[in-house]
Amino acid sequence: MFDNKEKTNIQELGEFGLIKHLTQNVELKQPTSIKGIGDDAAVLDPQGKKVLVSTDMLLEGIHFDLAYTPLKHLGYKAIQVNLSDIYAMNGVATQVTVSLGLSSKFPLEAVEELYEGMYIACEKYNVDIIGGDTTSSKQGLVISITSIGYADENEVVYRNTAEEGDLICVSGDLGGAYVGLQLLEREKLVYLENPNIQPDLEGKDYIVERQLKPEARKDIVELLKEIDVKPTAMIDVSDGLASEILHICNQSNKGCNLYEEKIPLDPMTYETAREFNLDPTVCALSGGEDYELLFTVKQADYDNIKFKMDFTIIGHITEASAGCNLITKSGNVHKLTAQGWNAFKN
Amino acid sequence: MFDNKEKTNIQELGEFGLIKHLTQNVELKQPTSIKGIGDDAAVLDPQGKKVLVSTDMLLEGIHFDLAYTPLKHLGYKAIQVNLSDIYAMNGVATQVTVSLGLSSKFPLEAVEELYEGMYIACEKYNVDIIGGDTTSSKQGLVISITSIGYADENEVVYRNTAEEGDLICVSGDLGGAYVGLQLLEREKLVYLENPNIQPDLEGKDYIVERQLKPEARKDIVELLKEIDVKPTAMIDVSDGLASEILHICNQSNKGCNLYEEKIPLDPMTYETAREFNLDPTVCALSGGEDYELLFTVKQADYDNIKFKMDFTIIGHITEASAGCNLITKSGNVHKLTAQGWNAFKN
Repeated sequence: MFDNKEKTNIQELGEFGLIKHLTQNVELKQPTSIKGIGDDAAVLDPQGKKVLVSTDMLLEGIHFDLAYTPLKHLGYKAIQVNLSDIYAMNGVATQVTVSLGLSSKFPLEAVEELYEGMYIACEKYNVDIIGGDTTSSKQGLVISITSIGYADENEVVYRNTAEEGDLICVSGDLGGAYVGLQLLEREKLVYLENPNIQPDLEGKDYIVERQLKPEARKDIVELLKEIDVKPTAMIDVSDGLASEILHICNQSNKGCNLYEEKIPLDPMTYETAREFNLDPTVCALSGGEDYELLFTVKQADYDNIKFKMDFTIIGHITEASAGCNLITKSGNVHKLTAQGWNAFKN
Repeated sequence: MFDNKEKTNIQELGEFGLIKHLTQNVELKQPTSIKGIGDDAAVLDPQGKKVLVSTDMLLEGIHFDLAYTPLKHLGYKAIQVNLSDIYAMNGVATQVTVSLGLSSKFPLEAVEELYEGMYIACEKYNVDIIGGDTTSSKQGLVISITSIGYADENEVVYRNTAEEGDLICVSGDLGGAYVGLQLLEREKLVYLENPNIQPDLEGKDYIVERQLKPEARKDIVELLKEIDVKPTAMIDVSDGLASEILHICNQSNKGCNLYEEKIPLDPMTYETAREFNLDPTVCALSGGEDYELLFTVKQADYDNIKFKMDFTIIGHITEASAGCNLITKSGNVHKLTAQGWNAFKN
């Protein structure tokens, strides 16, 4: 991970010294950020918009394994995961707060690396770090991020507003993050058995990156605005396609038909899943952590979206009594069940 | 703590089931809460006000010890600690998000107790729980809370705006939370040596409560509005009086004189500190966790505040070159140093 050659003990800096050191170069760029780090609370000016707030907690040993997660990637991913929730409301993400619990095994240089990844993500997504909390931890690394964004009231897209006949769309491709995780876990075991063997991730960059460095789909939210399509419902894919479409259907009191053959899979995801004797479709349905956007649009919008390469139409919304179904490639009908990310872990 | 007689394993419910179970009775009462738990992000309508955001992380073994902290109290305190930051900006606290990392040793009944304390605090302070995250933890209990509040732009009080000649005031009394902690730590050791000996906290209710169940000083913010006094600077006392006044002075580029004899101490704090061979003044200066409000007001406001029993004038702001000083009862002048809560722990 990091060598401890130039290790600086964070205890030497103390809590205030550490925060000062890490945040000394923070600049507020958003016009809605009035006051950032340095007071009891940050002060924001929403300028007449509605405010979107989402929060996520990432725990070492549960959400990430430092054996194969570079800290810079982890910082980057932690921010992405949170921004994704703001985009899933059709909002513009503008601010984050970052709380860290740091075990004493972490030298300052490691914390700097984590922060560097966060800064790169914030820079790229045009988001200000406006506050947070830094504390020591007896329990490994703890990351808690709250993201804030804005939208006009009529722009906000909820989960519970899908209508019968709406087309179900998903951005990018699915399952890659989960298959990437299997690969990393395998290489970790190989390494633990024989530390002289180098990890064999050659040619697997895409799926490894899907796991370690996902990108929140801000671009999809912008694209939909450009082509003047407002989704009827939207959610981000953090727990797997099945779990997410069930959220939309249950909360909208509707059913759905998803078509297996339409589910977008990257060839590398497909091949690697096969290597692991996994069903690629199951990886997409239950793998999670893809951070793509799943949304529904009115059939009337079909002409506006049909040539868009950034997302795929994978099914449609039905009445509730029809249930939530997957139509397999062979034409069989399966009830969708939410297995989700947690079940995979247990 | 809690007996496991009627233990329900939280694994049985799963993440979504647990969240649903815990939040099924949440009602949104604030007119600014448009959408709470159940979507990718909460939606708030600040109604033209500025938005205040603050976040705190509480970790088992660092910020609390479950050996003597009832979970209901912990839930209550976790909310208070956060609201206190919003009041310290002179704002009205309105919403919180609650993220929890729960180790598998926690049965559902324990989580319910924790939540019950949170609900009581939210009810009392008129705050909505609008979101959060619940995950399993391999690392003991993790609590991360983000609080949100509102204020008009001209109402917000920062730390960096104290002026020379301003009076320094503090609400309530200080040092009690720290002395209460010493008492709880002592009784824990006694108990560990001989589990048959019952904790001896008789007559110590006040300081034990100061530690286990502090109250954020919403009432002080309201009182100051009533008497039409806007503080020139304000901060809450989480790390001890010395640390907090140094924040105000350093950020305002000013100095201060604090008078030891004016520092408000409860008689029980004084006596118990003496029992522990601690200097009661040091407990006030460096103990922390009192969650009182420390603020400065213009001398012109003296007539408005002089008969208010809810806070005490303990000194005044000077020019920066005079430094930050404590004038002892014997008339000696000591430089104030920030020892703060963390130093006490190490």
